[in-house]
Amino acid sequence: MVMTKNLEISILFDFYGDLLTDKQKEVIELYYNEDLSLGEIAENANITRQGVRDAIKRGEVFLLETEEKLGFSKHFNELSQKLSKIKEEVENISSINSKTIYNSEIDLRVKEILKLLLEIDE
Amino acid sequence: MVMTKNLEISILFDFYGDLLTDKQKEVIELYYNEDLSLGEIAENANITRQGVRDAIKRGEVFLLETEEKLGFSKHFNELSQKLSKIKEEVENISSINSKTIYNSEIDLRVKEILKLLLEIDE
Repeated sequence: MVMTKNLEISILFDFYGDLLTDKQKEVIELYYNEDLSLGEIAENANITRQGVRDAIKRGEVFLLETEEKLGFSKHFNELSQKLSKIKEEVENISSINSKTIYNSEIDLRVKEILKLLLEIDE
Repeated sequence: MVMTKNLEISILFDFYGDLLTDKQKEVIELYYNEDLSLGEIAENANITRQGVRDAIKRGEVFLLETEEKLGFSKHFNELSQKLSKIKEEVENISSINSKTIYNSEIDLRVKEILKLLLEIDE
């Protein structure tokens, strides 16, 4: 059996990893984020390869089910796209303002919005 | 013992309610959202008052611990405040634009941003 490391699990781990058991959290972190092999994780954690495989599998199922129930990953993804579009439009306003009659008040507002968008992104 | 119904639980229920057991979900929904008394819930669910009280307590603890681990409620609250400020600033731009030289391109961008903010709010 070849387990494919998928990006989705890595993303869901960022969202819901703190709900996993310590063991699941550890092996998923090593497998997905540190890119260790099952064998290497087994050696480090002093459990069998099959034990590692099972813990990863259970963790993956939990993460996928949790996203199914809560949907925060999907939600943040959609939010992030909308915020990018808002940023684009704000930059358009800034550009129009510079090219036509330059209004310093509009410029101030634009800078404030870009600052807020940056804070959200952090 | 008087249980105080607090708003926080009601908010956390919206975020994480789908992670509760069916029973916890049911009693917390009836207690917090439908505002039924412990006695009324006990009668409906055909369990003791103490059983209801315990299920609510366990559910509350779970919701508070989940927020402690994931923090999405706090995160969304901060996000929401920043989005409100962005909306204010965009409305300021619109108002400055109307009062000074009216630029229809800026007006279009403003409308697009307000539409996106409204979509996020939904």
